Amino acid sequence: MSDTVEQEREVRERVFAAAALADDLVLRQETARLHPADIAEILDQLDDDNERLSVFSVLDDDRAAEVISDVGESARAALLARLADAHITTLLEGLDSDDAADLLGELPEDRKLLLLHRADPETRRDVQGLLSYPDDSAGGLMKTEVASVDIGTTVRQVRTYLRQHRDDFHDIHNVFITDHKKKLVGYVPVRNLLMADDGSSVDEILLSDLVSVSATVDQEEVAHLFEKYDLLSLPVVDASELLVGRITVDDVVDVIEEEATEDMLKMAGVGDEPLGLHGPVKALRTRLPWLGLNLMTATVSAAAISLFQETIHQVAIAAAFMTVVASQGGNAGVQTMTLVVRGLVLGELSPHNTRRIVMRELTIALLNGTVLGSVAAATVYAWTGNVRLASVMATAMIINMLIAAALGTLVPMGLRRLGADPAVASSVFVTAGTDLLGFLVFLGLLSVALGI
Amino acid sequence: MSDTVEQEREVRERVFAAAALADDLVLRQETARLHPADIAEILDQLDDDNERLSVFSVLDDDRAAEVISDVGESARAALLARLADAHITTLLEGLDSDDAADLLGELPEDRKLLLLHRADPETRRDVQGLLSYPDDSAGGLMKTEVASVDIGTTVRQVRTYLRQHRDDFHDIHNVFITDHKKKLVGYVPVRNLLMADDGSSVDEILLSDLVSVSATVDQEEVAHLFEKYDLLSLPVVDASELLVGRITVDDVVDVIEEEATEDMLKMAGVGDEPLGLHGPVKALRTRLPWLGLNLMTATVSAAAISLFQETIHQVAIAAAFMTVVASQGGNAGVQTMTLVVRGLVLGELSPHNTRRIVMRELTIALLNGTVLGSVAAATVYAWTGNVRLASVMATAMIINMLIAAALGTLVPMGLRRLGADPAVASSVFVTAGTDLLGFLVFLGLLSVALGI
Repeated sequence: MSDTVEQEREVRERVFAAAALADDLVLRQETARLHPADIAEILDQLDDDNERLSVFSVLDDDRAAEVISDVGESARAALLARLADAHITTLLEGLDSDDAADLLGELPEDRKLLLLHRADPETRRDVQGLLSYPDDSAGGLMKTEVASVDIGTTVRQVRTYLRQHRDDFHDIHNVFITDHKKKLVGYVPVRNLLMADDGSSVDEILLSDLVSVSATVDQEEVAHLFEKYDLLSLPVVDASELLVGRITVDDVVDVIEEEATEDMLKMAGVGDEPLGLHGPVKALRTRLPWLGLNLMTATVSAAAISLFQETIHQVAIAAAFMTVVASQGGNAGVQTMTLVVRGLVLGELSPHNTRRIVMRELTIALLNGTVLGSVAAATVYAWTGNVRLASVMATAMIINMLIAAALGTLVPMGLRRLGADPAVASSVFVTAGTDLLGFLVFLGLLSVALGI
Repeated sequence: MSDTVEQEREVRERVFAAAALADDLVLRQETARLHPADIAEILDQLDDDNERLSVFSVLDDDRAAEVISDVGESARAALLARLADAHITTLLEGLDSDDAADLLGELPEDRKLLLLHRADPETRRDVQGLLSYPDDSAGGLMKTEVASVDIGTTVRQVRTYLRQHRDDFHDIHNVFITDHKKKLVGYVPVRNLLMADDGSSVDEILLSDLVSVSATVDQEEVAHLFEKYDLLSLPVVDASELLVGRITVDDVVDVIEEEATEDMLKMAGVGDEPLGLHGPVKALRTRLPWLGLNLMTATVSAAAISLFQETIHQVAIAAAFMTVVASQGGNAGVQTMTLVVRGLVLGELSPHNTRRIVMRELTIALLNGTVLGSVAAATVYAWTGNVRLASVMATAMIINMLIAAALGTLVPMGLRRLGADPAVASSVFVTAGTDLLGFLVFLGLLSVALGI
């Protein structure tokens, strides 16, 4: 493996160099040695659209179709904008229906219609059907190329049927079995067909522990089914339970990565901004609202602090120490919140263990608060020699850690209960709370202790 | 589907109720209607170990084996601690080698040896071999049940071979082909065997675009290969390139979830603490160090603030406004950092686009800073009527947003360059920087503006 990795890296470097020079001969030679997925990765990493086009143009139709369906969103948009309609039509006809629909779905409406019009009737019908589903639904993930046979078919007949549709079924894992009303009744994994006698009927080897989804189900739910039931392919049915497509595990792997990325970005308040390659102005749309919200909450905190101007005027160093209390609370709150958000998403938190989780987080907060509060109090005492200030520090720290644990569990759980996504900007809400309450508790206690 | 979801929920509630009463009869009846994966989920959600044992005890051996390999770590530990050795031995023999190794790997050393000793020789040999690999390596993920045939074998012979090993090969996707020295030379997907003629040789349909890994490769790299090349199963080879096992996509789906969870937790400074069900003391070990580090950095910030005691003494409200500057920087820094960490993990950031990403983040920061800085300055002016204070606010805010963008990109990239994990506690480092520099910039500018 290490040999091939080394070799592959060298080939890549030669491709990067040749792309810069638009050297078609070298590009053709070197890309021929790479897997389409590697070529897609290179296109993602190239920054210059002309260089991307140089690399893409040397690929033959089959490989071009594989590469265009593997490449990231921004590289794809750049390529599609520069390719001729005739070229895209060829690509579309070489793609599975789901990939063809994904590709068309990213184009402007008028170009999409034009290209659909140019495509062959079968592609047009399949792709138009798929485009009617939302991107992030089961319908948006499925492909229409499904192997299905009626009950009573023999294994020999199934083999003939598969051979006849070899191109459509290049990645099937199961053959689905339907009854005489075309309703889905079971499936047979291809390996079981291989182990069965050619003369036997699919009825004898049919498995009926069938998991299926309706086309409108959300992709997060689809991913959850794949994980839970260790599926390779999931049949999709319409409202009358007729088989309309299937979702394959390779697409679900991408969905899982995508959902994890989305959750991380949402927690940080970056909305659903795709990674770093869009224009900066687009990024403002997702980030500015959360920063604006944070400015509002920070201003409320500032107003709370301003209530204690007299205290701060008398003990200016308090302005330094209050930030330590707030900062500790913020970090502890984000720790708890991250665990809880992830637990909610993975389905590990349920009404049956919520109370225990909350109690556990409060216990941890008490222990952390006691340890860190003591250290902080000792530091304050060594620094100022003021026992009152030191005791206020310890007390405020413990209280703010408890507040952090409460907010870290309740904010995401509350968002979930309200039907909102628990990941959405949880960290903005949690740190707003630990800042505000941290300042209030510290300055409040100090004022009382000093009799101000 | 919605019918079944409703029904399943009712069955679950009856299982929860029956578990509380240890009602074996109802438990046997109701669990029989559930998929093993659903039973595992129920065991994860139960809090009481006796209730878990009641549910588990009514399962027959086959289902018990499936459930125990599906259940989460803490429920499994609780069950294994209470099951008799003879029962565990039966479970082991019903499991695939990888699941058997995972299960034994979680037991204390002396019990593990005892159980290995009791197992049949084949299980013992396979499992002992697998236990020699680290948990998070390809060897730790693979199973030893591999279908492989020599070059020259006919499709008919392959079918007979698969039938003979039906139990071991219940989840195979590919038959691997080896040369006369037992070296791996290619593979045939089972669907291609099914489409081929029985009389043909595997040589005719063999695919040689083989991706394989050595047993010592890290699981993150394994997951990356599955995603990139859309694999269903990946052969694992030893140092002399002999086939020793295979990794299947269902296990990789779990790895991807696990790695995403780990990255999120690491970013928040919760180390590799597994979700919420371990004792609180264990949690302290992972969280306290990062909170301790944060206490140190917050104390440094406090010391920086204390340099400006005279300024704060004169303008006590400055203590309120400086927290707004720090808070905005922290949030903006975490936004950038999250995008960059995720981009590094997904391989979307490379030396070829680093500069562009940094420039882009700085541009966004300048735009965000200008908008939010103006709002903040207007607020300060409305509040205090002090123009100097307002201009200091705007300037400090813009500068701290730029600092946040720089730290948000450079901290994770720097950690990566040092060979460290870019996710590890990046948020602790980034917010430490935006706090410290935010306070310094604001108070420094204010002192100059006021001539203190």
